[in-house]
Amino acid sequence: MLSFQNLLASFETVFHKEVQTIQSTDPVQLYDPIAYSLQGGGKRIRPVLMLHAASLLSDNIDGVFPAAVAIELFHNFTLLHDDIMDHAGLRRGEPSVHIKYGENSAILSGDAMSIMAFEFLSRCDSSKLPAVLAHFSRSAMEVCEGQQLDMEFEERDQVTISEYLEMIRLKTSVLIACSLKTGALLAGGDDNFCRLLYDFGIQIGIAFQLQDDWLDVFGDQNTFGKKIGGDICENKKTFLLLKALEMSCEKDRAALKYWLEKSEFDAPQKIEAVRKIFTNSGASDATKALMNEYHGKAFEALNQLDLPDNDKLELRKFADSVVYRIK
Amino acid sequence: MLSFQNLLASFETVFHKEVQTIQSTDPVQLYDPIAYSLQGGGKRIRPVLMLHAASLLSDNIDGVFPAAVAIELFHNFTLLHDDIMDHAGLRRGEPSVHIKYGENSAILSGDAMSIMAFEFLSRCDSSKLPAVLAHFSRSAMEVCEGQQLDMEFEERDQVTISEYLEMIRLKTSVLIACSLKTGALLAGGDDNFCRLLYDFGIQIGIAFQLQDDWLDVFGDQNTFGKKIGGDICENKKTFLLLKALEMSCEKDRAALKYWLEKSEFDAPQKIEAVRKIFTNSGASDATKALMNEYHGKAFEALNQLDLPDNDKLELRKFADSVVYRIK
Repeated sequence: MLSFQNLLASFETVFHKEVQTIQSTDPVQLYDPIAYSLQGGGKRIRPVLMLHAASLLSDNIDGVFPAAVAIELFHNFTLLHDDIMDHAGLRRGEPSVHIKYGENSAILSGDAMSIMAFEFLSRCDSSKLPAVLAHFSRSAMEVCEGQQLDMEFEERDQVTISEYLEMIRLKTSVLIACSLKTGALLAGGDDNFCRLLYDFGIQIGIAFQLQDDWLDVFGDQNTFGKKIGGDICENKKTFLLLKALEMSCEKDRAALKYWLEKSEFDAPQKIEAVRKIFTNSGASDATKALMNEYHGKAFEALNQLDLPDNDKLELRKFADSVVYRIK
Repeated sequence: MLSFQNLLASFETVFHKEVQTIQSTDPVQLYDPIAYSLQGGGKRIRPVLMLHAASLLSDNIDGVFPAAVAIELFHNFTLLHDDIMDHAGLRRGEPSVHIKYGENSAILSGDAMSIMAFEFLSRCDSSKLPAVLAHFSRSAMEVCEGQQLDMEFEERDQVTISEYLEMIRLKTSVLIACSLKTGALLAGGDDNFCRLLYDFGIQIGIAFQLQDDWLDVFGDQNTFGKKIGGDICENKKTFLLLKALEMSCEKDRAALKYWLEKSEFDAPQKIEAVRKIFTNSGASDATKALMNEYHGKAFEALNQLDLPDNDKLELRKFADSVVYRIK
C-alpha cells in the first residue's frame, strides 16, 4: 500500500514528462493549449486514487501509470470544454484555454485531449484492457450526462434535491469512482473488491461536491482559491439553495425569491443576504449533515473491503480530508 | 468476400437500431442531437470499408460491427465539431447541430459521440482490442491534427502543395485507411496485409479529397449536393488554387490575386472568373493528373495484396468510383 504523498510525487514526475512531450509535438497550435491546461496545476486526485487502489492489491503498479495519465487527461478535457460552455474566463486563477487561444482551439484541443486519454489507455495490460476500456468509456459518457443535466438545471425553474444529487453523482462522483475501480481492475481485483471501491468513490464524490458547494458560500476566499459567492450570484441550484427554499420560514423564502428574481444587484449585498438565509433556514447544517451521511456511507463500503485495517488508512484519511477540507 | 452493397445494407440495419437506442436514452437533450446528426445520411464509406476488409479474411464478420459503428460515430463527431469551428450552417442540406440545438449542445453531444465510439470499440474481440484501440486512437489524433492544419492554413498567406497534401492525408485519408486496417486487424490479418490495406486507404483517400475539391469547383450542383464554388468564395487553399498560382500566366495570376484580395464581390462572378483561371492555367488538368497518380498508387498497393484477383474486385471498383464520381 502506497501513501498518497508518494504516489502524487511519482505521478507528477511521469506526468510532467508526458506534458513536455505533448508541448513539443506538432502542430504546436493543437498541442500547446493541451500542455497549457495540464500545467495549470490541480490536485491530481483521480490518478492518485487510481494508483493507490492498485497498490492495495499489488506491489508493482508501474503498468497503471498510463491509465492514471489517461484519467487526468480526461478530467482536464472536461474542465476545458466545460469552461467554454459555462463562459468561464478563469481556471485555477489563469485565463481559460478558450480565452487564451480562442474558442476553436479550445474545442479542438479538448477533443484531442479526450482522444489522447484513450490512446494512453491502450497501453494498459492487454488482458485487462477490455474491462478497463468498457468501464472508462461508460464513466466518461456519464460525466457528459452530468454536464448536460447541470446545463439543463440552469434553464429550469424546478429542480428536485434527488435530481441535483443524481447530477453531481454523474458529473463529479463517477470519475472519482472510476479512478478507484480502474486501479483495482488493473491490479487484478475481483468483482466485489472493485464494486466496493467504486461505491466508496461514489459516496465520497458526492460528499466532495456538497463540500465544494458549501465552501463556495461559506469558504474563505484566500484559502479556497475561488471567488466566494459565485454560485449565489448565478442562482445555481445547489443542495444549499434547494434545501433553503424548502426549509426557510415564509419571510426568508420570500426574501430568497426576491434575490433569485432580481436581475440587477449588488453582488456582496446579495451574497450576504442569501448566505444568512442559508444559515438561518438550517440549509447549511443540512448540507453538513448530508455530507456526513455520504461520508458515513463511504466508510461503510471501506469497512466491507477485504483488506488489513492498516491498508485502509489512506482512504480513510482521504475521506476525512474531503469533508473537513477548507480548500 | 462481401460486396459493398450487401455490407451497406447489413450495416444500415445494425446502425439504425443503435441510433434508435441512442434516441431513446436520457438525458434526451444530450442524445437527441447525436441521433439527429447520425440520421442525416452519409455514404457510410468507412464502416463498409472496415467490414469489407474483414470479409477478405474471414467468413464471419459479426464481431466487426461494433468497430464499424465506432468509426461511423467518430466520423460524424468530427463533422459535428468541424461545423461549429467552420461556422457551417448546413450539413447534408439540413441545419447543422449547433444551429438546431445551440453551440453548447453541439460541443457536448459531439464529445459524447466521440466517447461513444470508444465504448463501442470496447466490444471488439478482446485479443484484438489492444492493437485496434492503439491504431484507432492514433488515427483519431491524426484527424485532429489535420483539422488543426486546415484551420491554420486559412490564416496563413503561404501554404505549399506538400503541406496541403499532408493536411488532407491527416484530415481525410487517415480515417479511411484506419477503417480498412481495423477491419483487417479484427479478422486476423498479418502486418503486411494490414499495411498494404492501410496504404491503399491513404492513397485513395487523397484522391478522394482531390476529387472533392475539384467537384467543389467543376461539379454539378444538383448531383454533387453541395453549393458549387464555396471553396473559391472562401479562398480555400486547395490543390487547385495553389497549382493555379504556380502555373498561371502573369496576367491570370494577377487576376487571381485580385479576386483573392477582394473582400466584397459578386459570388457568381468570382466563381466564374476563378474557374476559368483554374482551367486555363492547367491547374484543373494537374488536379486530375495527381488524382490519377494517387489512384495508381492505390492500385499498386492492392496488387501487392496476397489475395485472389477476384477478391480485389470491390476495392478496385471503389477506387474507380472515388476518381470518377460526380457526387
